[in-house]
Amino acid sequence: MKTISENRCFGGVQGVYSHASQATGTDMTFGLFLPAGAEDGPVPLLWYLSGLTCTHENAMVKAGAQRWAAEAGIALIFPDTSPRGEEVADDAAYDLGKGAGFYVNATENPWAPHFRMWDYITRDLPELVFKAFPLEEGLQAITGHSMGGHGALTIAMSFPGRFSSVSAFAPIASPTSSDWGRKQFTAYLGEDESTWAQHDSSLLMKRRGFDGPVLIDQGGSDQFLDLLKPEALAGAMAERRQGGSFRMQKGYDHSYFFVSSFIEDHIAFHVDALRG
Amino acid sequence: MKTISENRCFGGVQGVYSHASQATGTDMTFGLFLPAGAEDGPVPLLWYLSGLTCTHENAMVKAGAQRWAAEAGIALIFPDTSPRGEEVADDAAYDLGKGAGFYVNATENPWAPHFRMWDYITRDLPELVFKAFPLEEGLQAITGHSMGGHGALTIAMSFPGRFSSVSAFAPIASPTSSDWGRKQFTAYLGEDESTWAQHDSSLLMKRRGFDGPVLIDQGGSDQFLDLLKPEALAGAMAERRQGGSFRMQKGYDHSYFFVSSFIEDHIAFHVDALRG
Repeated sequence: MKTISENRCFGGVQGVYSHASQATGTDMTFGLFLPAGAEDGPVPLLWYLSGLTCTHENAMVKAGAQRWAAEAGIALIFPDTSPRGEEVADDAAYDLGKGAGFYVNATENPWAPHFRMWDYITRDLPELVFKAFPLEEGLQAITGHSMGGHGALTIAMSFPGRFSSVSAFAPIASPTSSDWGRKQFTAYLGEDESTWAQHDSSLLMKRRGFDGPVLIDQGGSDQFLDLLKPEALAGAMAERRQGGSFRMQKGYDHSYFFVSSFIEDHIAFHVDALRG
Repeated sequence: MKTISENRCFGGVQGVYSHASQATGTDMTFGLFLPAGAEDGPVPLLWYLSGLTCTHENAMVKAGAQRWAAEAGIALIFPDTSPRGEEVADDAAYDLGKGAGFYVNATENPWAPHFRMWDYITRDLPELVFKAFPLEEGLQAITGHSMGGHGALTIAMSFPGRFSSVSAFAPIASPTSSDWGRKQFTAYLGEDESTWAQHDSSLLMKRRGFDGPVLIDQGGSDQFLDLLKPEALAGAMAERRQGGSFRMQKGYDHSYFFVSSFIEDHIAFHVDALRG
């Protein structure tokens, strides 16, 4: 593991690190905020998965999350959204290839060799960070924005017991029925739609639900409402009698101004659940 | 004036606007955050002047200021740091020309035609925004980071009565004795150093001081300490018996992680002074 940068931030340290990932077969970069309390022993960890076009950096600098994490004494991890590098396949579109890993393991070429973000987030990166940093593996929670909200929800429901709580900002809630999903799943997973369902949070919510609290915030003036399909997830949560809240925030759009406006609430929500 | 974007943010609106400036002879872009209370009438305004290489956007997305401005019911304005456009002179160095206006009116060529950021910040932009937005002209405060801290301090001391309070994050505190200053003042103002003193906050502090409270935060691990020369300003404040605080923040560097860690304090400081 290589340290790219470390900055003092709200009494803790905002670091950026890179490491060789077995899952993606590439070097991967991530941001990790450690609160001051991490000097005295392991702290809980909140995962923040980012959206289309993002790297590890966007939420780290724009979401305003560190202030609340510092106060609560929890760490934040900001992974990248895809493999990077010259050897990695890409597409001219912003929503396929680099910056658009969709948190799946690709089975189709040319994506299969490197686009294994599911394994990266759920196996490689945890193995690394719980060894390298003072983080409490038994105290994890997960959130994300847009494509990252999709990732947070599908991962949380697929690893029962790993995360105390899950939240999302404007998640891609129904990828199997949206152009944000059908296009990417066809490319990464192939045309057999039966393999897609495990990566659709609304379908997973109906089938399994989540064994802890769920918080969803969606901007009422989000320019991508037609692609996000929040109604699918809200309906599934209600149908499942899932414990949690689905909030439609009037006037807010899809930007980080929306995320930063509500990140305090999300961190407080996860801290409550982590404290159990 | 043209609206470039408006995003709902902490119950208010984060807007970006452009307008033709008489001072610079160019179109200029600025960010303005209006809290929810601006719907009911004029609100106080805090100016945030940015540093080298920045546009209107950096602090707007990375300083985490809106949360505290929203709570306090004050507006924030984020001006650009130089004129822009093909017709505007530039230099290959990051610290001269575009992104490096230094908040002066250039008298030397090739800079004189457009590099008039002093007039832009103190005359053009106020004339525009107090007409176009619900802002209380009698309730202004000013802050800034690095080159913007220099701008905030020199402007505040040069317009007694206009600003209730001034603060700065890691200001360029002694430009007449630093490579961050001597190079630019020579280029913009010419070799007669007698014209430089009015743009040196440590000299102004000794000579005039500020008729309100002053708050300075400086990172103790700032990588640019040798260029910033905080000791000049701290000494001048003490010599002047200036009311205010100079704080050396151990371990913090020059980044926005430093700014965002203390922006809450600065906004609270200005709100106290504005409420007077």
